[in-house]
Amino acid sequence: MAAIQYELIKQCSHTGARAGRLHTPHGTFDTPIFMPVGTQGTVKAMSPHELKEMGAGIILGNTYHLFLRPGHDLVAEAGGLHSFINWDRGILTDSGGFQVFSLGDLRKITEEGVAFRSHLDGSKQFLSPEKSMEVQMALGSDIVMAFDECVPYPAEYDYAKQSTERTTRWAERCREAFCGGNRQGLFGIVQGGMYKDLRSQSVRELVSLDFPGYAVGGLSVGESKPLMYEMLEHTVPQLPSGKPRYLMGVGTPDCLVEGVLYGIDMFDCVFPTRVARNGTVMTHTGRLVVKNAEFARDFRPIDEHCGCYTCRNFTRAYIRHLFKAEEILGLRLTTIHNLYFLLQFMRDMRQAILEDRFVAFRDNFRAGYELAR
Amino acid sequence: MAAIQYELIKQCSHTGARAGRLHTPHGTFDTPIFMPVGTQGTVKAMSPHELKEMGAGIILGNTYHLFLRPGHDLVAEAGGLHSFINWDRGILTDSGGFQVFSLGDLRKITEEGVAFRSHLDGSKQFLSPEKSMEVQMALGSDIVMAFDECVPYPAEYDYAKQSTERTTRWAERCREAFCGGNRQGLFGIVQGGMYKDLRSQSVRELVSLDFPGYAVGGLSVGESKPLMYEMLEHTVPQLPSGKPRYLMGVGTPDCLVEGVLYGIDMFDCVFPTRVARNGTVMTHTGRLVVKNAEFARDFRPIDEHCGCYTCRNFTRAYIRHLFKAEEILGLRLTTIHNLYFLLQFMRDMRQAILEDRFVAFRDNFRAGYELAR
Repeated sequence: MAAIQYELIKQCSHTGARAGRLHTPHGTFDTPIFMPVGTQGTVKAMSPHELKEMGAGIILGNTYHLFLRPGHDLVAEAGGLHSFINWDRGILTDSGGFQVFSLGDLRKITEEGVAFRSHLDGSKQFLSPEKSMEVQMALGSDIVMAFDECVPYPAEYDYAKQSTERTTRWAERCREAFCGGNRQGLFGIVQGGMYKDLRSQSVRELVSLDFPGYAVGGLSVGESKPLMYEMLEHTVPQLPSGKPRYLMGVGTPDCLVEGVLYGIDMFDCVFPTRVARNGTVMTHTGRLVVKNAEFARDFRPIDEHCGCYTCRNFTRAYIRHLFKAEEILGLRLTTIHNLYFLLQFMRDMRQAILEDRFVAFRDNFRAGYELAR
Repeated sequence: MAAIQYELIKQCSHTGARAGRLHTPHGTFDTPIFMPVGTQGTVKAMSPHELKEMGAGIILGNTYHLFLRPGHDLVAEAGGLHSFINWDRGILTDSGGFQVFSLGDLRKITEEGVAFRSHLDGSKQFLSPEKSMEVQMALGSDIVMAFDECVPYPAEYDYAKQSTERTTRWAERCREAFCGGNRQGLFGIVQGGMYKDLRSQSVRELVSLDFPGYAVGGLSVGESKPLMYEMLEHTVPQLPSGKPRYLMGVGTPDCLVEGVLYGIDMFDCVFPTRVARNGTVMTHTGRLVVKNAEFARDFRPIDEHCGCYTCRNFTRAYIRHLFKAEEILGLRLTTIHNLYFLLQFMRDMRQAILEDRFVAFRDNFRAGYELAR
């Protein structure tokens, strides 16, 4: 049996939204799903126990970071990433591509791969489709991502075309080098910049390689939200309906709703955890900077309707105090809340799809969001 | 009924060690007990849930810190410290004395009290016996400590005598200002420096004020361990056996064993949590710097016999990785381990006392500790 299988449960009758299940070697998870990011082998400030309690299913690991530290050999020696970090649910690893391209002057791209210098010690390193597969196979993640180039924004048509075609060639090399058997599944990543014909070309070429799932890459990289939605509307319907679709690096509520509307099943983003550590929390009506003075004597929870550990036990005033006093518990509590908020938001969307009221859900959400501006 | 009552369960037949129970308005706790320190309204890096899971009974709060931030008025408005920090077990607050005296040039001591400048914003502040009582009553801790002066080490006899006598006068003023009813109990603090006659004088004077419990202060302030033990041997037996005895600021295993041996029931110290945040963990045979390179591929738990969340779930190699990557989970895991280690160490001592084998327990412990040097 294939390592990764998607089961479509319910298709929205008015939009592309769909509810499904993702079967992985470490469990079956409801989609649409938000996946917390665990860059260096830990979702920042969280324990695996807390992640389970909030209902997290799949978390991310970053190949670039784990490759440099502690090294994939060490992780393999520990029995793989699941065992190393004590997480028995799903893990998806990215390919390392996005991080090395982000290094700017510190990296050089050739057809063979990407030479770069480690941000940790300046040492010379090299990642290629083959190397990325080797590393991700050592990590043992359930879902392995193909090594791609994320087309920057803005990009000239010619560059975007050449880059997208190289991503296809690299995807072929990944497929060749990858042997995950029934333990790991390899996803292809659609590129194409903001050019519809290149997006179509990328989809066509990758689908011909028959991956068990597809990511839409190169979005949320600086373009406007309407442009991102346009690209999604154009791209997602071309992907096979029997395979999961993953929108990389997107995690604000408004974008999640639109992503689901166009038929995306999986999302990840550092946004909820990163802003949490700065004292910002997410609610249905927008963000709250809980460390602000206005909350000093506010003895209500962050959100009275939220069921997370933080909201069940602590007040805004206490969390604000913890941030002022620079106590670790403060950012733990905001991180728990933000992740729970997004996970619950996805569960609510799924329920709406199952009950065929997703359009109303989206309208309600947008009304509340607008109201708060 | 008095807020704080001590129940003697078993007296060791060969030493001063004793097993008992401490009854407080927020529950009954087995003694001898180690109390984790929650300086600013949180035991650093821990949640109340985790503290309960490891079996913590009473935690400390610091009057000096909470007085300055968020302020005792705000805490009172939140319903008291228990409610503010969501902790329904015991809380002991110190008097603020030790912290203000530690400010050095920033404070001035008079008979009335101590004028000082806040370490946060340089603002002028004043603490006195009456003010300390007002603050601690607003905080609503189960156990309130008298406002004392900790005699520095070394100190001339004359200074130590004057200071100790002032501590008695301040204790009288505290007793006068304090009205905890059946909600809070006020402990006196024995001083006297390293002078036995002053220690005896201090005990005599404080016991005449009839507090529901007594602390031994001014130890572990720079003197040698043998000198500290000598002072304990001299002082503790003079305290009434029907009241709890609290040795302030002591929390290394060797000192805990000796403290218990001389008849101490309660301990607190920032040591286990502070060293944990630096990557040092405690074991029966001494300390381990888990962030060191030697543990990079050590896939054993910190301590194979330990029942804490950390040891049940994570390896030294993973914890070492978390410290190298500066991930918060690393210091959370070492903090959990160190606190659990000390709480369990106290439970083991108590069991040994109950079974009248405390002397053997101490000998065993010392042999293991010596061996590890």
